Formats: sequence, structure tokens, C-alpha cells
Amino acid sequence: MISFKEAYKKVLEQKEFYGTEKVLFTSSFGRVLAEDILADRDFPAFNRATKDGIAIHYSTIEQQRNAFPIEGIVAAGTQQAKLKDVSHCLEIMTGAVLPENTDTVVMYEDINIGNGTATLQKEVKKGQNIHWQGSDTTKGTVVIKKNTQITAAEIGILAAVGKVEVLVKKLPKVTLISTGNELVAVHETPLPHQIRESNMLSLHALLEANKITPQHFHLKDDKEAVTNSLRELLHSNDVLILSGGVSKGKYDYIPEAFEALKVEKVFHRVKQRPGKPFWFGVHPKTKTVIFSFPGNPVSTFANYHVYFKAWLAACMELSKKAMKVVLGEAISNEVPLTVFKNVKLNDENGKKVAFLVTTNGSGDLMSLAETDGFIQLPPQETFEKGTVVRFVPTRNEFYK
Amino acid sequence: MISFKEAYKKVLEQKEFYGTEKVLFTSSFGRVLAEDILADRDFPAFNRATKDGIAIHYSTIEQQRNAFPIEGIVAAGTQQAKLKDVSHCLEIMTGAVLPENTDTVVMYEDINIGNGTATLQKEVKKGQNIHWQGSDTTKGTVVIKKNTQITAAEIGILAAVGKVEVLVKKLPKVTLISTGNELVAVHETPLPHQIRESNMLSLHALLEANKITPQHFHLKDDKEAVTNSLRELLHSNDVLILSGGVSKGKYDYIPEAFEALKVEKVFHRVKQRPGKPFWFGVHPKTKTVIFSFPGNPVSTFANYHVYFKAWLAACMELSKKAMKVVLGEAISNEVPLTVFKNVKLNDENGKKVAFLVTTNGSGDLMSLAETDGFIQLPPQETFEKGTVVRFVPTRNEFYK
Repeated sequence: MISFKEAYKKVLEQKEFYGTEKVLFTSSFGRVLAEDILADRDFPAFNRATKDGIAIHYSTIEQQRNAFPIEGIVAAGTQQAKLKDVSHCLEIMTGAVLPENTDTVVMYEDINIGNGTATLQKEVKKGQNIHWQGSDTTKGTVVIKKNTQITAAEIGILAAVGKVEVLVKKLPKVTLISTGNELVAVHETPLPHQIRESNMLSLHALLEANKITPQHFHLKDDKEAVTNSLRELLHSNDVLILSGGVSKGKYDYIPEAFEALKVEKVFHRVKQRPGKPFWFGVHPKTKTVIFSFPGNPVSTFANYHVYFKAWLAACMELSKKAMKVVLGEAISNEVPLTVFKNVKLNDENGKKVAFLVTTNGSGDLMSLAETDGFIQLPPQETFEKGTVVRFVPTRNEFYK
Repeated sequence: MISFKEAYKKVLEQKEFYGTEKVLFTSSFGRVLAEDILADRDFPAFNRATKDGIAIHYSTIEQQRNAFPIEGIVAAGTQQAKLKDVSHCLEIMTGAVLPENTDTVVMYEDINIGNGTATLQKEVKKGQNIHWQGSDTTKGTVVIKKNTQITAAEIGILAAVGKVEVLVKKLPKVTLISTGNELVAVHETPLPHQIRESNMLSLHALLEANKITPQHFHLKDDKEAVTNSLRELLHSNDVLILSGGVSKGKYDYIPEAFEALKVEKVFHRVKQRPGKPFWFGVHPKTKTVIFSFPGNPVSTFANYHVYFKAWLAACMELSKKAMKVVLGEAISNEVPLTVFKNVKLNDENGKKVAFLVTTNGSGDLMSLAETDGFIQLPPQETFEKGTVVRFVPTRNEFYK
């Protein structure tokens, strides 16, 4: 049995690169860029009025006694206009190109207009209310770096630079495998000794949030059938995620089956709770990575967040900083295991403060409804209230 | 012009209820429950072994001298077995029903097996390694409350209780409306005085993350066409989100058009930066709510996060606590406006610390690639490093 730290390291060492693919930028949300994105022109592309008002030639203010006959009007989306007489002005709308022979924009709020003449009511600074060409970014500059995960902000930028197709990293092909004869489908009414499958449906939702649509497979507790099914699945997937069948039970054929199929066992059993019987391996030829989690709901859920997401981030070359939270109460970990405890977070003056969720152990699926994530407690230590500990978030917050 | 605080309050006052609908639980990720979810049976549904090993009748330990002849083996997914002779034991697998006449499970690690007899190697506690029927939840108990936003954890619970269809709140029907003759489509090469549309593509991605698939419409800067189009859109949508056309420009027909269409203006212009020319209204008959944001990319982006998301959360009856962060540097807000500043967050010992992102104003779309959200600074105040301020997050963090 290895330590959590070793296990975590060994999982990350198995990161793989799955190549790249082009996708429409409108479908790229959540994907990771495999190329730098460059500005295809200056931003702004022209000297752009940022207010509605008049465009003037600043140097003429003194001679004019602040009164500028209006030559015409310039809308956004029209070609650059020209001020014919520099002692005049042009009305200009936000987003329009600054006319030739002008260098300053004065907004309507700061002028009076009468008899075809605009009169300044306030002091004016040369060059005001203009968003100068190239002042945000110049043509050819990297505006989004490779290895960035695309969110709505990046989609706006991809649109602005006309990047209709973007090169992103391919995601691994994943199959979720449930095990155990006690499981029935969600729409079935279980007999008293049966339970409905739930782990794989929860993992499905998590994978979809990461833009992976997994396949599903159910293994019955039969040694030969298990081996034959896993042989096929190994050859058609980049990743297998299993739940159950890795304990010491008589019908826990999974480790044996993988051995028979020449999968390299990286480790089996980790000094952690929940999730101790975690079996992790990789097929030397197909490079299929196998996360075989214990079947208890909280064990599978925690291990997915702790190991799989970190592994996926490593595959995508995303830099991933461990999140930290502050303990809202004293906690003691008396066992020689790294312990993950369900917590709820409170936001207290910019600090994330963690409070334990009452739970009945690793089988207590219902406790996850109250859980924001897990705090990670190293073996046999006592933690005072206020201690900063590592936190593994498990909840996407949409509206928050 | 009203204060930010008033504007925010007035927006939330326009919350609407859009009814409920049934969806498959597998499609319910991100939706908000419109019903309490009850346990359809006890959890666990039976006394369940949590370890692989043997099941015994505890009271017989002393008489046995710790040696228990094995009567048979009990797998998970089979009907409850019965220990015929209480001085014997049954091998039992994780997930199996505790046999009649047994009350304690001893794991394989703590026994020796030889000649058909299991011998205890460690002290045993009565009732150990059993997940007792109903100890997590009893039949009929609420396991997920109404008004909960469904994440992967809830999907696992819905599966476990067999809730194939769930009642969720309907989402509003939204159309995104861009304005401005200077805009061209993303796949087009803009002329020097044109720019590609980007705001609506960014908003589209944000709405989709909230499970809303919006329609799109582009208004040309023509008064009559604007009014006619808006008339139709008002009658076929719950929400219109516009970008641009609300400043003081000669071609900013939007406020006028809404007036002509008898839309009630709730307010126009807010003492805030960016996003000052925000126009907000509601049609008294159709109840269509109109968010008409200024056209600058950062203005639209910030206003969407500040106002629209808060409004949507209110419609969904989601309790939404303002997030707070700690300033990583001293900042002064000298203008008589509530100012939203782009920041990047650092996690420092469980504290979220905000640092300003260099930006070139509300037109600087590129700065959003570096931004984790906006800090909200009340008018004309100076803030020391370490001050706790309100924060509006703008980035979904998938792998983190």
C-alpha cells in the first residue's frame, strides 16, 4: 500500500497527449487551446470615437473661441470622413472612425448646439475620447496563449480576431464501467437486496462538464466475461474508469482480469480514506489508462475529483494550483491515512472557511448534496481551527 | 441617472417565474429543482456489508475460541442468506445483505482461513463493518431540497432514488440583439472601418453555460426597421439582451423605439463604470424584460455578470451570496461612480486576493483573457491593500 502523495504522483506521471483537432470556435467552450491566437489586425483597427459628440482639431480651439460650425455627421460603420476646414467640426458617433484632420472628441454633454454650430462648455484635453488604433493590441500579437482553457471571454476574442476554427487538444475517449450484480438500472424498482446504479451517472455528468461524452458498460460478476469484455474495452478506449470490484472479495475479478490482459498495475490500494482500494494501471501497448475506483459512492466521487481531474488537467497541460481553505473548526485525523472529509464552504471576508458535513461514511451518497468539496488531511495530525488545508472542489457554480 | 445600488435593486425587482417542466434526470445538470426529492426507500435499503470477509453472530465469539466453520458464501446482489448454526459463519462480500442470525462482519485482513474454518486474528467489535439499513436516510425523507441547482452529486442521488424525470424550473426564452452598422460576421474580413461582432458570441457561451440557448438578431441602424423588429421580438421572448445603441448618438434609436412600443423604462444610465448607458425596461403586457447594454465589449460583459446573472438567480429562487475578495494592492476610486475593475485572483492561504489587470478601458476586449472577474468599488473611496470588497466572478473553472 503506498502513500497518497506517491499515488498522486504516479497518476500524474501517466499523463498522455491525445493530439489536436480543429473545432468551430462556437463549440470550443471548455476546450484547451493547442495554438497561440494572434491579433489579425490592430485593436482597435482604427482611431475610434468612444463618445457621441463632435470631432475637432484641438489646435484650433483658441482661435475659435470654442465655437465650431458643423460640417456634417459621421456614423459608425462608415468609411473615414475628412474635416475640410480644420476650424469646423464633424458630429461623430461612438464606434465611428476619427475623421481626417481631427484629433479630439467632445461629447454632447459638454457642448451646446445652435444654428449649426457647436460651442464647447467645458475644458477639453487634446486627444480625449479616442480609443487609439493598436492601443489594446497590435496586429500579430498573441492575444490568447496556447494551453488556455476557453471560456466566454476567450470566445469573444476568437470572434473579434475572426478565428472561426480553432486548434484544440483532443480529449481522451473514456468508457465508464460499473460492476456488481446488485446494481439495477435507474428506471427499475430494485428488489430488497438490489440497489440502483448511481456512480456512473454522476461521473457521466462530471465528464460532460469537461466536454467528454463517455460510453457506458456494465460488467457482471463473472470472471471469464469480465476478462473478455475488458480485453475489448482496452483496445477501443484511452481511459477506462471503473467503480467497484477492486476490494478483497471473492467476486472482485478486476485486478486479476487486468493482470491476465497484461495491464501494468501501477498501484493497488492507497493509504487514504475514502478510496483505499483504488487500483490504477496502464496498458503498455494500447496506453489505455485505467482508474479502477472502489464502489462506494463517496469513494468513487472523491477519487474522480482527486485523481482523474488532476490527471486530465496534466494531459491538457493546464497549470493547476491546489486550492486552499481555512478550517472553521478543529479537526483531528487519528488514522495513518490521508483523509478526505466532506465540507461546506463559507465565504468570510474573502476567506474560504470549511465546515464538516455530517456524513455516515463512504457509502453515504446523500451527504454529497450538502458538500462543496473535500478537505485533504495528512495522516495522524491534529488541525486547529484556522489551519490552512488543501481543498478539492466538487461543485460547479453556475449562477454564483 | 441612478446609483448602482438602486439600479441593481430595480433589476432584481423584475424577477419573473417562468413555470416548471419535467426533464430526464440525465439532462438536468445545471437546472434548478422545482420539487423536493424524497428517498423512495431506506438508504441503505438493507443491512449492508462494507467489507469482504465473514459474517458472524457476535455473542458466540467466546464459545468459539475465535474459530468459525464456514457454512457458505454470500455475494452482493443475492437475496438475504441465513446462517443456520450461529456458531458458524458465512463468507460475505462488500455490498451483500447481512445474513439472518449474524450481526458483525470481520474483514479478510483480520482472519485466517484453513480447513473450512475462519479464525479471528484481531479483536472484534459487535456490529462492525455494517452499513445499517436507513442509517443515511429513511424512506420518505427529503434528500434534495426544492430550489437546489443540480450538479453531478445531485444526479447521483436522483439515480439512486429512481427519479427518472425531475420537475425543474423553466428558463426564460432569450434573444440576443446586436446593433451597429459597423459590425460584420466573424467569418468576414472587416473593411478598415468595420469590426467583427464579438459581444453576442461571448454572451451566447455564457447563456449556454446556464442551459439557455438564445436566438440571435442583428438590428441595423435604421429607426423604422429597429422599431418593427423590436415589436416582433418583444412578443416572442421573455428576455431581450441588447448591446449597443443606447448612448447619446444620433443613430441610437433603441430607447426611442422602446418608448414607441410602450415598454416601461425602469431606468436609463447608471452611476457606474463601465456600463453607464445601461437601459433597463419591461413591457407591462408581455412582461418581456429588456437588458440593453452599452456596446463596448467590457461594458456588456461586466453588465451581463453583474445584472443578468443576479436577475436569473432571483428568477430561479437561488439564494446568492455576494462573493468577497481581499485587495492585493491599494486602489483609489476618485470618480462619483461605482467602478468595476478587472482583476486576477491569487489563492493565498485560503484567501482570495485580487490584483488589477492592466486594461485600456471598456473597449479593451483582450484584457478579458487575463480577467477572473470584477471587483466592485463604491464611488469616491480609497481602499487600502487588504480591504475586503465585493467580487463578481466571470470565469467558469472546469478542471480546477
